[in-house]
Amino acid sequence: MLRLSTKSSVVAAARSQTRSLASTATLLKATRIETDAFGEIEVDSEKYYGAQTARSKMNFKIGGPAARMPLPVVHAFGVLKKSAAIVNEELGALDPKLSAAIQQAATEVAEGKLDDHFPLVVFQTGSGTQSNMNANEVISNRAIEILGGELGSKKPVHPNDHCNMSQSSNDTFPTVMHIAAVTEISKSLLPELTKLRDSLQKKSEEFADIIKIGRTHLQDATPLTLGQEFSGYVQQVSNGIERIEKTLPNLLYLAQGGTAVGTGLNTRKGWDVKIADQVSKLTGLPFKTAPNKFEALAAHDAIVEASGALNTVAVSLFKIANDIRYLGSGPRCGYGELALPENEPGSSIMPGKVNPTQNEALTMVATQVFGNHSAITFAGASGQFELNVFKPVMIANLLSSIRLIADGAASFRLHCVDGIQANKDKIEKTLHESLMLVTALNPKIGYDAASKTAKNAHKKGLTLKESALELGVLSSEEFDEWVRPEKMIGPKD
Amino acid sequence: MLRLSTKSSVVAAARSQTRSLASTATLLKATRIETDAFGEIEVDSEKYYGAQTARSKMNFKIGGPAARMPLPVVHAFGVLKKSAAIVNEELGALDPKLSAAIQQAATEVAEGKLDDHFPLVVFQTGSGTQSNMNANEVISNRAIEILGGELGSKKPVHPNDHCNMSQSSNDTFPTVMHIAAVTEISKSLLPELTKLRDSLQKKSEEFADIIKIGRTHLQDATPLTLGQEFSGYVQQVSNGIERIEKTLPNLLYLAQGGTAVGTGLNTRKGWDVKIADQVSKLTGLPFKTAPNKFEALAAHDAIVEASGALNTVAVSLFKIANDIRYLGSGPRCGYGELALPENEPGSSIMPGKVNPTQNEALTMVATQVFGNHSAITFAGASGQFELNVFKPVMIANLLSSIRLIADGAASFRLHCVDGIQANKDKIEKTLHESLMLVTALNPKIGYDAASKTAKNAHKKGLTLKESALELGVLSSEEFDEWVRPEKMIGPKD
Amino acid sequence: MLRLSTKSSVVAAARSQTRSLASTATLLKATRIETDAFGEIEVDSEKYYGAQTARSKMNFKIGGPAARMPLPVVHAFGVLKKSAAIVNEELGALDPKLSAAIQQAATEVAEGKLDDHFPLVVFQTGSGTQSNMNANEVISNRAIEILGGELGSKKPVHPNDHCNMSQSSNDTFPTVMHIAAVTEISKSLLPELTKLRDSLQKKSEEFADIIKIGRTHLQDATPLTLGQEFSGYVQQVSNGIERIEKTLPNLLYLAQGGTAVGTGLNTRKGWDVKIADQVSKLTGLPFKTAPNKFEALAAHDAIVEASGALNTVAVSLFKIANDIRYLGSGPRCGYGELALPENEPGSSIMPGKVNPTQNEALTMVATQVFGNHSAITFAGASGQFELNVFKPVMIANLLSSIRLIADGAASFRLHCVDGIQANKDKIEKTLHESLMLVTALNPKIGYDAASKTAKNAHKKGLTLKESALELGVLSSEEFDEWVRPEKMIGPKD
Amino acid sequence: MLRLSTKSSVVAAARSQTRSLASTATLLKATRIETDAFGEIEVDSEKYYGAQTARSKMNFKIGGPAARMPLPVVHAFGVLKKSAAIVNEELGALDPKLSAAIQQAATEVAEGKLDDHFPLVVFQTGSGTQSNMNANEVISNRAIEILGGELGSKKPVHPNDHCNMSQSSNDTFPTVMHIAAVTEISKSLLPELTKLRDSLQKKSEEFADIIKIGRTHLQDATPLTLGQEFSGYVQQVSNGIERIEKTLPNLLYLAQGGTAVGTGLNTRKGWDVKIADQVSKLTGLPFKTAPNKFEALAAHDAIVEASGALNTVAVSLFKIANDIRYLGSGPRCGYGELALPENEPGSSIMPGKVNPTQNEALTMVATQVFGNHSAITFAGASGQFELNVFKPVMIANLLSSIRLIADGAASFRLHCVDGIQANKDKIEKTLHESLMLVTALNPKIGYDAASKTAKNAHKKGLTLKESALELGVLSSEEFDEWVRPEKMIGPKD
Repeated sequence: MLRLSTKSSVVAAARSQTRSLASTATLLKATRIETDAFGEIEVDSEKYYGAQTARSKMNFKIGGPAARMPLPVVHAFGVLKKSAAIVNEELGALDPKLSAAIQQAATEVAEGKLDDHFPLVVFQTGSGTQSNMNANEVISNRAIEILGGELGSKKPVHPNDHCNMSQSSNDTFPTVMHIAAVTEISKSLLPELTKLRDSLQKKSEEFADIIKIGRTHLQDATPLTLGQEFSGYVQQVSNGIERIEKTLPNLLYLAQGGTAVGTGLNTRKGWDVKIADQVSKLTGLPFKTAPNKFEALAAHDAIVEASGALNTVAVSLFKIANDIRYLGSGPRCGYGELALPENEPGSSIMPGKVNPTQNEALTMVATQVFGNHSAITFAGASGQFELNVFKPVMIANLLSSIRLIADGAASFRLHCVDGIQANKDKIEKTLHESLMLVTALNPKIGYDAASKTAKNAHKKGLTLKESALELGVLSSEEFDEWVRPEKMIGPKD
Repeated sequence: MLRLSTKSSVVAAARSQTRSLASTATLLKATRIETDAFGEIEVDSEKYYGAQTARSKMNFKIGGPAARMPLPVVHAFGVLKKSAAIVNEELGALDPKLSAAIQQAATEVAEGKLDDHFPLVVFQTGSGTQSNMNANEVISNRAIEILGGELGSKKPVHPNDHCNMSQSSNDTFPTVMHIAAVTEISKSLLPELTKLRDSLQKKSEEFADIIKIGRTHLQDATPLTLGQEFSGYVQQVSNGIERIEKTLPNLLYLAQGGTAVGTGLNTRKGWDVKIADQVSKLTGLPFKTAPNKFEALAAHDAIVEASGALNTVAVSLFKIANDIRYLGSGPRCGYGELALPENEPGSSIMPGKVNPTQNEALTMVATQVFGNHSAITFAGASGQFELNVFKPVMIANLLSSIRLIADGAASFRLHCVDGIQANKDKIEKTLHESLMLVTALNPKIGYDAASKTAKNAHKKGLTLKESALELGVLSSEEFDEWVRPEKMIGPKD
Repeated sequence: MLRLSTKSSVVAAARSQTRSLASTATLLKATRIETDAFGEIEVDSEKYYGAQTARSKMNFKIGGPAARMPLPVVHAFGVLKKSAAIVNEELGALDPKLSAAIQQAATEVAEGKLDDHFPLVVFQTGSGTQSNMNANEVISNRAIEILGGELGSKKPVHPNDHCNMSQSSNDTFPTVMHIAAVTEISKSLLPELTKLRDSLQKKSEEFADIIKIGRTHLQDATPLTLGQEFSGYVQQVSNGIERIEKTLPNLLYLAQGGTAVGTGLNTRKGWDVKIADQVSKLTGLPFKTAPNKFEALAAHDAIVEASGALNTVAVSLFKIANDIRYLGSGPRCGYGELALPENEPGSSIMPGKVNPTQNEALTMVATQVFGNHSAITFAGASGQFELNVFKPVMIANLLSSIRLIADGAASFRLHCVDGIQANKDKIEKTLHESLMLVTALNPKIGYDAASKTAKNAHKKGLTLKESALELGVLSSEEFDEWVRPEKMIGPKD
Repeated sequence: MLRLSTKSSVVAAARSQTRSLASTATLLKATRIETDAFGEIEVDSEKYYGAQTARSKMNFKIGGPAARMPLPVVHAFGVLKKSAAIVNEELGALDPKLSAAIQQAATEVAEGKLDDHFPLVVFQTGSGTQSNMNANEVISNRAIEILGGELGSKKPVHPNDHCNMSQSSNDTFPTVMHIAAVTEISKSLLPELTKLRDSLQKKSEEFADIIKIGRTHLQDATPLTLGQEFSGYVQQVSNGIERIEKTLPNLLYLAQGGTAVGTGLNTRKGWDVKIADQVSKLTGLPFKTAPNKFEALAAHDAIVEASGALNTVAVSLFKIANDIRYLGSGPRCGYGELALPENEPGSSIMPGKVNPTQNEALTMVATQVFGNHSAITFAGASGQFELNVFKPVMIANLLSSIRLIADGAASFRLHCVDGIQANKDKIEKTLHESLMLVTALNPKIGYDAASKTAKNAHKKGLTLKESALELGVLSSEEFDEWVRPEKMIGPKD
């Protein structure tokens, strides 16, 4: 049912050509007719999607490319529709031949081969109905093509009757939300955080013997090792990994089987369990059917919970990246204890100027995650009766946070942490300029003389040793023997 | 060292009198002199606190009574200082007589008997140093009093040397943050959420047989039982309880033993374990020493994590309270499916007007928790080097969220949920007015006739039955037999 | 300096071919060498950008397509670079021939013709340096091309020396932030909000005579007209327009002229004023030079302020969209006072089911704006010394909010508000079922009899009139004469 | 109608005694009976409030003392009720004698004399009805007392009929929200921000001639004066003042006259204007009647808008306080350019250790304001139909933000800014250690030699001068003549 849009009557272009022309030429576009309950609508003949997708494109011109439904959601629809076909076939409800075609088409969706056929944005129907129909339409048309039928004919594979069999947008969309989230967390986020943790751990070990001044309230304090300082970062990231893992059990619950309002109308008993098993098989991830489908459709607390964990991880990363950029500040007029890798020209005039650009990117990532979390919180609270209709905006923000943290952690590790070097001379010099080491003299020369030494040093801008020698409270040898920062970095035996 | 302030020279009032006069009389106030490194300062002779507390009162006049340091923090200081005295005595570092007096004084602090002696606000030093000193000063003066000494003399119990022995504000304040949070969560929040869950569960069971219209997108949808609808709320609160419980392991870690920068300088090996054990004994809660003290001082991710769980719970409660108030809207012009208890006069003119005031209070609580969570997130990300200096604002907001949810849940349960009644007539009437039940006729009269029936009803404002009879597609008996909502509330066998 | 990447040695492909091959073929890619202070780097020969852009692409693989630097920023760079060339030429600092080529290239950037040459993401250097260099590189290479030179040769147009003359990333990026924001607000957001306001105003007038029940606390209250109800929405949107307009004065200040730290080093006196004038000429918008350049680089409070206004507008839109979807809830089991336009299939089974999808999209937009605002707030607070290094994430979120509200308002107006119809019968019926109208009887039959009437009606489920007649407190004619909602919708004269 | 609570049967205590006993004794409490539509309830005989307040105390035990309704709201009720009495008397609707008594009682409320009689919390009815009734009850009973009547008798002054005449909670509460907000902003917030601005301005002038290193990306950059740096802070605070002022016009609109749903039912035409005029007279602030009462009851966008301005101010203050504490970091191991006033003991061991406690308090204030703003945003969006029922939580958070910023600004000014001193030696030393000054040599010795000089200095840890002399590129005299930071702090003529 290919036909050319009314914008041009010249043409007769072969279909094989239009595919490459389509992207540039706007004057000339081949279309076919698709139909839904509202009637006919012209669809780009290069695309597999149908009338409801086309209608949504017209009705929701909101946000542009940046607002496109995230691809992990699209791919998860592939997984789900394939699983449904398998289960429906097993139950004898779906013809094996149709099932096979649907499975093949759905696999292509899952593998990202049909991404260009999913043009819808996040800001659409709040149940994600139109993205569910987009999946149904693409899979049915592709399956029709596989079976040699005519696109748009809905025969022999119908988008609703076959691709959406036993399903409702109200349970498929929350299902793909969870599949997408768990997949991205498992395959991308947790591995990247683990690598970052390991990288920090390596640095903590490398820096184990470098004693440096501690800082509390930004003021000079008692010493610790640079390795100890980094061990705090390691602990933060380790905890972050665990925090995310703790949210997985609730994300692993799938809403599928609740259909329209959670009752499971139009499914058979056990369908919900079977579909979760099938999704687990395909993904290798231990999904389970949700214990209460009413909750699973009407609330997305599991998404809010997961976002809360990401928010905490972002808090950790902000602190770590911020510390490291301050410790690397300088080269002459800052703390200067760390040398960060130089990845791009800072300035052609100022050698040694290394802008902590990875830290800047990572802290910007963190602020975005905080914002995403606010959006998710508000959206999560705003469900009504049997349905939360903020599904697309919730999953879009969650997936944004997951990806940003994963990518940000990778970038920060590769281009910053792995290459951090300690400016040992500067660290050593700063440590010994500190007046705080005077604490070590208390048991030797008494609190009063020690205090006097420190005050004299502060007043006159002397080192502690200079001050002590000037005051004659000890000898140079005694000072060197008694003032030993390495004795101050742990509890006494 | 009692003396009268310069504002009056008349007086010679007996000390026993001033205690009661103090609250009303402002002209005349008895004071004593307390000292710190900055010198002398006059302190209200009725109060146990000393110079540093008095100085903080002068320097941080921020926020008034609403900004006062939360009492659970004060009480936790009592627990911690008592624990420290016990451990220090065990280790032979603290004289048993002094230890006993400190323990007695600290117990009074822990039991809330000395609350009036803790006047400081949240917006002070970001390490909470001044609240730590407030505790040290109150306990030392009260211990001095117990031992017959003179207030302000620091003899025989010194606020720093004895009450703060082996401690630093930098580890005591994070320790009391965790003690206070876990205590409030365990003793107040979790019990109240459990009671609310049980109350909702009871209603879910009570309403198990009431079939009602479902609503998705706020539009009429397929039916479910009122019990099923409430079961979703039960699941949300159950999950909420688990979400909070999952944050306890990290909150149970105590920073104590890290002292100034996390190294544990000035403690003995094992002090950290002993103090955690002692706090556990006193509280009956399984506290442990934090595995990494650098993280425990410099970051408060555990607080952010816990706040994230509370945020999720608030999301759930907002949804539940919002649903229930809409379902109770009316009495004539709303959904009117639920009758909420009438707790206070609505209007003397409109009988049946019941304002859903408990729902309003609970949803306001939720918005406050969202706000508190934002504050905690920002503060948690802003730590620097060895110390996060947003400690007081973090714990104040966390304790606010804990208390508000606990109190709000209790109030909502007692004054709303427990008394909810189903308006069965209205529910039944609404259900049967719905056109959605036509779905049941598909297999009997065919999709086309069913659709025609529904459209005719919608157009003319008829019931489905009236429409079907008008169209002559079935008999009255057939309608009653076939259109059975009770068959539509679950999957098929 | 075209050469083929080492990945393939087969090749000899003509350049004209590679353009179309580039997108699909990954094995074979034509490249040229670009250089910066770090040395050589291969760049896709199809692209105008140079070494620093290429390096940023490698070093900041964060967030994917959704995180791309917003195009309004890119276009604003075109405006700014053109303005700078004009001013520099005027001042005799830039050769007229080079200036002309730069202006032509910059115009193409401004007009969106070179969008494909700006591949960088938001999560890069926090000063936006790399996007500034991207602009410099693209413009210099395109200008070189115009002048017949060789891409990558930096001759005769150098990206730094000519395109960035008298500029620093530290002042250009905040300048384009403001140009982009004001442009989008002026050309898109304000017009769309105005149209929405007018559309609501039209509905308010259309509904001026429809008296309906009021609802407070979701409970039936005294009547008002549907027109009055909509007038509240009109007021909200009107105020929103003014709120946004009030933020323009600060957004109209340009940082240009501050160069590296705000001092204007390397500019001449008056350059800042000239550049603002030139940008005004090109854009038709009244930009001015910022009165204090230190503030303009180190803080972006104007962005936070503008975001605060957008946040308030989102609050208004959320309320309006939420009200309207509830008023349209039904068709049988909800409020049912409004009929919203049907834009896409609701359900093939339930005629009359219209999902309020536009309201859902708009409320999702609002939650996203709330989230964006949180991100902006945090980022805005986190500047350090002479530079805020959260610039890209701030402007990206602001432009997201601007576009989402503009697009969302347009979509909501076109596909919802314009087509809203009042269900007069339902409104009339609901109004007269309300017991609240009894208020009108107080002066006629006395408060006690009126109250008795209302209570009797509530108890027995009667209308007020039925109840009054049953109780014999008035006649049917008297009721109809006295109970007149139209007398209850304003103050007495 | 005094009687003793059933908890004790001993008693016979004279009323004059109970007043002082009440606060301590809990066993024995004198009560009287108050009534409302729900019947009798015992009220503490020491309190003026009546049955509805007492009932609210029982039904809303949420949040404790920290959640108490803010006093500015209470005082604003005094202003409003007095204004209403005056207008009602003028219109002949209220007996002059009753009016006089109401005015006297309301004045006492406005002046804070009856604060103890307003025990309710924020988390109550979302319309603030119970606080409105609290005001009505206290004023009526106090007026009754003035007129010699019996408390609780409602004669001759009835809380509803007289104190609430022509009013509804739905318009009084939003009215007091605005009165309280404008009053606190005008009398406290703006003056304090102005003083802070002036204090920063004074420092900016004091530091006008101190040239220091600039820092971008935390890295050494070109110089500026310390005065210029502070001028950025001045600009931020100046802008903040204007931002707040821009929100006043909408806050100055009063909802009074809208009564139940915005129509003004039960008022006379013009009542709304008269009441606004009267409030203006009493407060000296230019209040006006809201142009659209539907918006004024159903939405509180003006509160959200004002909170947005406060949020921006908090962003500014966070940046300023953060910069200053970093610039004051040290004394030996930090930036050390500023000496902050020492207000309390830092450490007895480390002289010179000054914790930037005021900065910590102010940044904590800022995070709280961010949180409050989130709560207000969410609450503001959640209004329904004719009423927003998040009024108390909105005004409580707004007043919290106002007070915290006002108090925080005052504290920061008095205890930090006013006492800041520049460490000129350190600033000078740091400036000259910087390699960045090499820029000045470009025109003298050429870019290549300059670059070589800088690189050599960086590599060997030399000063620029040492490096230049070592390389023999200039003489000592030439260096001193050419490298002049004072030439680098502004544009060229």
